[in-house]
Amino acid sequence: MTLALQWAAKGLYTTSPNPHIGCVIVKDGHVVGAGVTQAAGHDHAEIQALKDAAARGHDVRGATAYVTLEPCNHFGRTPPCSDALVRAGLGRVVAAMEDPNPLVAGQGMAKLAAAGIAVSSGLLADAAYELNIGFFSRMRRGLPWVRMKSAASLDGMTALHNGQSQWITGPEARADGHAWRARACAILSGIGTVKADDPQLNVRAVDTPRQPRRIVVDSRLDIAPAARVLAGGGTWIAAAVPDAAKEAALRAAGAEIIMLPNAAGKVDLAELMRELGRRQINELHVEAGAKLNGSLIREGCVDELLLYVAPTLLGEAQGMFALPALTSLAQQRRLKFHEVRQIGDDLRILARFNPL
Amino acid sequence: MTLALQWAAKGLYTTSPNPHIGCVIVKDGHVVGAGVTQAAGHDHAEIQALKDAAARGHDVRGATAYVTLEPCNHFGRTPPCSDALVRAGLGRVVAAMEDPNPLVAGQGMAKLAAAGIAVSSGLLADAAYELNIGFFSRMRRGLPWVRMKSAASLDGMTALHNGQSQWITGPEARADGHAWRARACAILSGIGTVKADDPQLNVRAVDTPRQPRRIVVDSRLDIAPAARVLAGGGTWIAAAVPDAAKEAALRAAGAEIIMLPNAAGKVDLAELMRELGRRQINELHVEAGAKLNGSLIREGCVDELLLYVAPTLLGEAQGMFALPALTSLAQQRRLKFHEVRQIGDDLRILARFNPL
Repeated sequence: MTLALQWAAKGLYTTSPNPHIGCVIVKDGHVVGAGVTQAAGHDHAEIQALKDAAARGHDVRGATAYVTLEPCNHFGRTPPCSDALVRAGLGRVVAAMEDPNPLVAGQGMAKLAAAGIAVSSGLLADAAYELNIGFFSRMRRGLPWVRMKSAASLDGMTALHNGQSQWITGPEARADGHAWRARACAILSGIGTVKADDPQLNVRAVDTPRQPRRIVVDSRLDIAPAARVLAGGGTWIAAAVPDAAKEAALRAAGAEIIMLPNAAGKVDLAELMRELGRRQINELHVEAGAKLNGSLIREGCVDELLLYVAPTLLGEAQGMFALPALTSLAQQRRLKFHEVRQIGDDLRILARFNPL
Repeated sequence: MTLALQWAAKGLYTTSPNPHIGCVIVKDGHVVGAGVTQAAGHDHAEIQALKDAAARGHDVRGATAYVTLEPCNHFGRTPPCSDALVRAGLGRVVAAMEDPNPLVAGQGMAKLAAAGIAVSSGLLADAAYELNIGFFSRMRRGLPWVRMKSAASLDGMTALHNGQSQWITGPEARADGHAWRARACAILSGIGTVKADDPQLNVRAVDTPRQPRRIVVDSRLDIAPAARVLAGGGTWIAAAVPDAAKEAALRAAGAEIIMLPNAAGKVDLAELMRELGRRQINELHVEAGAKLNGSLIREGCVDELLLYVAPTLLGEAQGMFALPALTSLAQQRRLKFHEVRQIGDDLRILARFNPL
């Protein structure tokens, strides 16, 4: 199963909106085939592993398949994997987790068992869960898993008052940040950051065959059609105040406008998250300024903080999250540390609001 | 040597201003004696180990002594340990480090070698150094090792604007903080914290036979003679503005006044650190408010930050260190992460400004 998880991780930057699944087929103590889910509409991991075994001339009858998620049992963009496993005559299927997709949900395993295949699930489930946390979030809640990235000093500051912020963290942390961008289905920022930094919001520091979708929260459509985040098209702009001329100019630049106003004339962030769930965004990577960060946290839209902490003190400067003062500690927003490690000279902290 | 370091650690709360030293005597592959430095004026570790071996009926002639610091070669409050090791007929002495005390500085090892004992040093030197970082600091620089403790939220806040701060971190972090207090020679705070919280500044959450010295920075002698930090006497008050009546009242409460004004009528903090070095303070544990913390950092008095970070966001609130805004990132105060671990639900971060 560890090997199957390694295969699954090969799909981290590509399989979205499908989950990243690995499959390893073992016969008589030897690995005879292995595979990973391909881009949506193409082979699932089980099919890849069966094809791999066939290409290498192995007979998989009676073999064991280790798969990081329960094999599917429905016709989606591809035929059910459970049928293929039955046809191939496998003797045993071990899944790390059952599929949270209500269209599968144990039926894949049930079909295998009904065909006389020995089945079990739960082996290394935690690791399998982490690889596909966004997919599980969308299946269970209809919402993406929202990971908010920030980089700050030990005293919690992201930039000087004059805006200077390059570079507080080191090159290793910045490259690591791009690996997290690469695994996300989409990267979200706000109009403040777009105006201040004109970011590309793409993946550069690591190799990836697929760039995540770019999303800008821009209530009044203030973004310039020449903004770098629009380059190449496909950017979604979440807005609240219609403006036919601006909308036309942005559409001409290849952007799509998602109009989601709330009563205050701002973007309804909670509704935006539901819309992104409907649009099959599994993991949403947020890199925004203190204001949008604070709004997303206040509205309960954030699942996880990804913080790079540099060993430095900046003193009076710009904080990470614009959150109003509390009047009692009972109002504090508690998280749970999920993982901490050193990346170059910096710390990387993953902390979660909402363990699923 | 690992065993000798474990013996050394037994003296962590007691041997000050002497270093915490362990000694293990091994003969024919068996431990025949072990000891730890006693309180100042009493046996050093080597003497304890020799006595232990004798009490257990072992002949140490030809044996190897593992000691976490070079044996002393001068008459201080006790006679030289090197003489005792020679007299006992040891065959070999392995030291983790040479003694930074200019009165020893290699002479202990030299005397042993001259007596025909095989000597070497450097084994597990890093661990031996960490155990006595304050002693080394004082010997090398004439200054205590200054460790500043703070506890904050993930966004760097220590308390709400209304002062509420109990509790941001959990009980495990608070107990761990007391273990760091216990190993310090002295605990320093400021008049702001004394007025706001009336702290005892003593060790309660861990057992210790010795309470650290308490020190309050109080330029204008504003402390009330009934303040809890003065209870039992022995507290040092660092001040800048003489006031005969206040001084008399504080002396009557058992305090000692250390008058160290700078040109601005405040306590000269750098001079206070030198004075504490002269007064044989090895490790100084600072638990103060943002203002004094900021002043100590600005004046370059701090060697290490001991930060407990709770998985929570407090928003607009009180920061850890009052430091002025920078105009360029080139002015930032860089540190180096030394150690990070999880304590209960919180993180404990040790970061150093000045690796010695």
